[in-house]
Order: sequence, then structure tokens, then C-alpha cells
Amino acid sequence: MEIMPDVPGALEELAGLVRVSAPRVARASAQQKMDALSLMAEGLARGADEILVANQSDLVRARRDGLAEGQIDRLGLDEARISGMSEGILEVAALPDPVGEITSGYTLANGLRVRKQRVPLGVVGIIYENRPNVTSDAAALCIKSGNAAFLRGSSAALSSNTAIAAHLCQALSKAGLPRESVTLVPDGSRETATAFMKLSGYIDCLIPRGGISLIEAVRQHATVPYIIDGEGNCHIYVDESADLDAAAEIIVNAKVQRPSVCNSVETVLVHQSIAAEFLPFLDSRLPQVELRGDPAVRATIVRAVAATEHDYATEFLDLILAVKVVDGLDDAIAHIGKYGTGHSEAILTNDYSHASRFVSEVDAAAVLVNASTRFVDGNQLGLGAEIGISTQKLHARGPMGLSALTTEKFIIEGTGQIRP
Amino acid sequence: MEIMPDVPGALEELAGLVRVSAPRVARASAQQKMDALSLMAEGLARGADEILVANQSDLVRARRDGLAEGQIDRLGLDEARISGMSEGILEVAALPDPVGEITSGYTLANGLRVRKQRVPLGVVGIIYENRPNVTSDAAALCIKSGNAAFLRGSSAALSSNTAIAAHLCQALSKAGLPRESVTLVPDGSRETATAFMKLSGYIDCLIPRGGISLIEAVRQHATVPYIIDGEGNCHIYVDESADLDAAAEIIVNAKVQRPSVCNSVETVLVHQSIAAEFLPFLDSRLPQVELRGDPAVRATIVRAVAATEHDYATEFLDLILAVKVVDGLDDAIAHIGKYGTGHSEAILTNDYSHASRFVSEVDAAAVLVNASTRFVDGNQLGLGAEIGISTQKLHARGPMGLSALTTEKFIIEGTGQIRP
Repeated sequence: MEIMPDVPGALEELAGLVRVSAPRVARASAQQKMDALSLMAEGLARGADEILVANQSDLVRARRDGLAEGQIDRLGLDEARISGMSEGILEVAALPDPVGEITSGYTLANGLRVRKQRVPLGVVGIIYENRPNVTSDAAALCIKSGNAAFLRGSSAALSSNTAIAAHLCQALSKAGLPRESVTLVPDGSRETATAFMKLSGYIDCLIPRGGISLIEAVRQHATVPYIIDGEGNCHIYVDESADLDAAAEIIVNAKVQRPSVCNSVETVLVHQSIAAEFLPFLDSRLPQVELRGDPAVRATIVRAVAATEHDYATEFLDLILAVKVVDGLDDAIAHIGKYGTGHSEAILTNDYSHASRFVSEVDAAAVLVNASTRFVDGNQLGLGAEIGISTQKLHARGPMGLSALTTEKFIIEGTGQIRP
Repeated sequence: MEIMPDVPGALEELAGLVRVSAPRVARASAQQKMDALSLMAEGLARGADEILVANQSDLVRARRDGLAEGQIDRLGLDEARISGMSEGILEVAALPDPVGEITSGYTLANGLRVRKQRVPLGVVGIIYENRPNVTSDAAALCIKSGNAAFLRGSSAALSSNTAIAAHLCQALSKAGLPRESVTLVPDGSRETATAFMKLSGYIDCLIPRGGISLIEAVRQHATVPYIIDGEGNCHIYVDESADLDAAAEIIVNAKVQRPSVCNSVETVLVHQSIAAEFLPFLDSRLPQVELRGDPAVRATIVRAVAATEHDYATEFLDLILAVKVVDGLDDAIAHIGKYGTGHSEAILTNDYSHASRFVSEVDAAAVLVNASTRFVDGNQLGLGAEIGISTQKLHARGPMGLSALTTEKFIIEGTGQIRP
């Protein structure tokens, strides 16, 4: 593993190269970017053997260092995963190009013609963890939106990421774009991550993709603008008037289909008047899930363990579900206000005014009525491949498609107008 | 001047009250907010005498403390200024309400109905300097957009701001909105400003309105999301084919009409082939302006002093103008890329391809062709009263109207859909 000798200095030098490459990507035509992406996809597919060799060396090191089995799984590549990465690039290539879109335009009384147009951000920095596919996914989304990608992956995945990035850069070069427009930091230390967050003037937008400690480090140390792709402590509230069959179906889907992702449900809130009927039914539908409940739940579901305050505040990302009986809508909204992370919150109800109040009063990136929280995803919502799901309120909120990687510019055209 | 004894603790307590008030403002109807704003305008007008007495005590203190004349001027109120503040609130009241606007909406193949809707940010924090009118301007924009306003003005203006805020809060209360939804921090120390920037979980968006040192402090210390309303080191490039009469007119307007504002021009770049003709003409049109030029400029305009690197990098905000002769478009774009602050940049030309290249290659919030930089302003561009002009790329760029004080929420309505 190559380590940068003088981290801030070497990183700034590298950042300078990425910065210089950015205007050339920004000005590339939509066609040139599509060509580059299809060469990138081709390059990955052709380089699969080399990438797998590099990945093996990461895996050997990971086992030697005693990484957890889940982490090793996320780190591992095989031919299917590489061809998935390659297809992912082609899917991004096929999306509509966001650059140049005029989002509003009008002519003022004095004849000035005004328009607001989408333009690339410039350099997008991504700090991510062990999954090597993020290298190609993020690179593809950045290039498609006219940005240079500055990538800082984990040290565990450094050989894999280096091999992937080498093939991507070769393709960029073949397409006539600067190879520095996808640049991987050759060092996965915590020191580099911290220095990376402070590259003011080099990085236009930082997207950290990782756990709470990374997010907290960004909030504390970053001097570059960033978008938080934060935790999803998602709730489903089963109201008095809910269709109980559909409710169980939705909860099973939201918990079991893919428990490790941010839009899976972590706590179910059940209206007291249906608790006696619904809880045993829910219990029977979730045999593989550990249930943690309040006293009212435990009175009905004997296998449920006692839920703590900590459980209500936790994104389990696992086959664990907290369950709580609430007095009604107000109680449910208050619980979500206290423990929610502003990701995705659902109500299951047939009461029109309850649905309306939930939608209006719950403060989250996405609120759902009678649907699984698992739909809160860029692809599912028709935005195309996503760079993440923002849990902040500024710039982008919820699933972020390509337009989240752009900014806007006012273009004002006149014939000599001056301000009176 | 009241000083908070335990700054972070007392501030957090105050922030808690503002936080709790925010959902009530967010859910107020457009009519209720309009009523509140008109009561606020009325309250200021009726309270003018009291406000002027408070302002006198600030002015006495300011003179005793030896504040500069410009600062004292910004601090001072009179009846006309107070009635201007009151009218400003009514103008904000009359703007279209941004809350509830559906920015996109569609139905997915599986029947899920998706819409994205504008919702208030929650609590908007503003740190500002001596002008007491910001207290009412910011409060009005926040309330109109459904946000609570948490205001931290300067210590010099504390008595004035306190008097203004008291009248605003009384009006809010009369309108049935919580008086804490406009809250002034009763302390203008630097310590409060720093603690204010770190109120994570209480402030949804911080807008610092002040000089470079405030902006730098925000970048270094803020843990809350913020929008930078930064410097405007604006350029006008006079191309070979420009109409020279119109060019002089535009430059005079952009420099002289109001030199102290961020969209005034600071450096003029002149194409070498027209320098001999244009520079003496420009000189004659700017008798009241100090010119700082490069050697080529000084060869023609003898009164011009030598421009330094520092001059090119400076937002003078004064009757001072840097002038430089450039080789042509590339040279002009490179100069702007090096010294510009990404605010407003103009080209004066009759060459179609030069105008197109300038518009596309200059990276700024606003680019103008054949018009004065002074038009880059919310009111001038038809956005209504502005909360500031963003020089950052995320969330809002350029003049910020009411919609910059909102975020969006995905609302997803189904009939029991689960993800396959």
C-alpha cells in the first residue's frame, strides 16, 4: 500500500491536477461524454482479469488483518460484479445529460434576456468505504454530469480501486478527455480523509459515503461544501384504519427485502386500538426478525425483548425491528420527530385527514402513504442511478440523481442596458 | 448592553425555543403569514419613536467607541429609513408564497404517485453587521417562507435591533404565531457568533452577511449548514468589437452608481487593439474614480497609479477601479479565472462566438453580455426581495429569492405497493 509521504502537500498537488482538468470535462459535449463512458465500460470489462488479481491481493490483506466477514464481502469482486459495474456505466451513459438544461428563462421589461442554466459543479470529491464498485459508479456519474471525480476510497480496497481507476483513466484519455478527470487518492489513511475535507478551492462538493464517524468528521472538519448522505432511521406507523394485511406485507418488505440499506424500516409504530389484533399477525410474518418492543408489545409478543431508548435511536441495518404501541397519530409524529433522521417515514392508513397531517407534519426527505419505505431510491423513483440519498435540507434532499451534481448559472444578455 | 453569562448554554436554551416555534410557522397558511407580515409592518411604523430612541443610544455609544463614519452611517436610522423597513415588509408580504409549490410530480408504472413539494427549511440563522434594517428584512423573508428567524446582529446595533425585534414579536403574537419565531440573540460578541455557528440540530441554514473575516470564520467553525454570501470582485471585459460609447456608459454605471455594493465592477479588462482609443475616453468619463493600471494603461492614462497583484484581487467597494490591457478573450477569461470571486462577470462585445465562449467558460453565479453588472440583484432580476447573493455553488447561486429559504420533500402515495 503506497502511502503519501507529506499528506497535505502531496494531496494539494494532486488536487491541482484534478482542478485543471475540470473545465475540459465541463465543456465536453454530451456525445463526447457518452463516448467516454462507453469506453470506460469497455475498459472495465476488458480489464476484468487484472482487476480481479488486484482484488485478490486486497482480500488476502483483509483476511490477514482480520476484517469482519461483512466487510470482506463488500470488498470482494468476481466476474459478475465487474460486469455489473460495466453495465452500470452504460446505464449512466444512457441517462439524459443534465448540463445545459435551462431551468427558467424570461425577458425583463428593459429588454434584458435572463436564463438560468445547469452547469457542472467542477470537482466532486467522494470519500467512501470498502466497495470497489463505488469507484466506477461515482466516476461515471461525475463524468456524465460534466464534473471531474476526485476519489478517496478505503485503504482496504486500494489495490482494487487503483486497478479500476487505471482502466477508467485510459478510457478517458482515449476519448480525448483528461485522464486526471478521474483521480484516485493513492492513500486510504484517516489523515488523507481529513486533509481531503479541507481542500478549499479544489473541491466544489464533497459527498462522504460512509458511517456516522465519517459524517461526524465531515461536519467537524470540512471546509469544502458537502452533501450529507446520512443514516436512515426509518419508521412505519400503522394507523387505526390501516388495511392490516397490506400493512404486514409492507412491513415485511421494508424490513426483510434488504435490511442492510438506509431505506429499510427500523421501527414500527402501532396504533393502540389495533395492537391486540395486529401484533400477533405481524409476529407470525416476521419469524426471521428479532423484535424489540415496549411493554405493550411484549404483553402480546412474548418473544420480543425489551426495547431501550438506544434501540429507538438506532439504524439497525439488520434483521432487527423495534416495535412500539402509540396512542395515535400525534404520538407517532412526536416519536418520529424525536428519533427520526429525516430520511423516509411512512404512514399506513385509510384516514384521509391522518394521511394529510402525516405528510405535512413529518419533517423528512421522503414521506410515504401506504407504500414501502424501500421505494425511496433514485432508480425506483425514476431519477436514474443515484449518487446517494441526501438527509440534509440544502441543495438536494432525498435520492440524488445527476442534477444534484450540477449548479446553475444566471446568463443575462443585453444591448447596452444600465441600471437606472 | 446585556451580555450572556454562559454563552453556549444560554444560546442553546434560546435556540431550543426557536426550534420549537418553527413547525408552527411552517404550518401557517399563506394568509396567516401575510396577516402577520402586515401587522409587523404596522408595528414598526407605530413603534418608530421608540426605535429611534434606542437607535440614538446605539449611535451615542458608537461615537464614544470611535466607530468609523461609514459604520455609523449604516447604523443610523431616521423616520424615512424606518418607513422604508415597514414598506419592505409589505413588499415581501405581497410576493408569491413559495411553500407548497410542487416542483415536479408524476405517477410511476406501479401506480405510486410521486411529487416533490417546497417546504420551509425550519430555523434560518442570520449573522449580520451594523445595519438594523436587516433585522426586519430577514425576519420578513423568513416568516414569508415559513421559517423561524434566529438573528444575531452586531453589538453596536443591539439596542436598535432589540427595539425592532420587540415590535416584530408583538405583531407575530397578535397574528397567532409564536413570538419566538423571530428571536434576536441579546449579545453581539464574537463568542456568540462562534457558538451560533455550532448550533447543530437547532439551525437548518445559516446565512452570514458580513465581511471576509466572518465568512472565513464560518468556513472554519460552522457545523450547521450555511450559504455563503461572499465578495464580488466583478470584471467587465471590453472586447475588440465592443460599442465603445455603450461600453463607457456601462462601466460608469457599474462603478459609480453605487460603488459600495457587491455587484459593482472592480476591474475593467480592455482588448489591446482598442486600448489606445478607448482608454482616454474611459478616463474622461470617470473623473471621480481613482484608476489603477498596468504599464500599458499607464502609458495612455497618465493619472493612473500602478496596479498591484493585490489590487486585482481586491473588492474595493469604493471609487477605485483597476484597469488592465489584455491580449484578447483568452487572456481576459484567464484573468477572471485567477482573480474572480464567482459573483458577476460581463463581456461587452459584438462578436457572437466571443460572447458564447465567455458565457460558457467563465465560472460565476452570473455572466452578462452587453449589460451592467449592477443588474445582478434579486429585485432587478424579478425574484423579489433577496436574502443575499450566493457565491457558492450548492443550494442557491446568485441572487437568492424566497425559494432559497425552502427545501423540498418527496411525497409518495400508494395503495399498498411493495418493492419487488
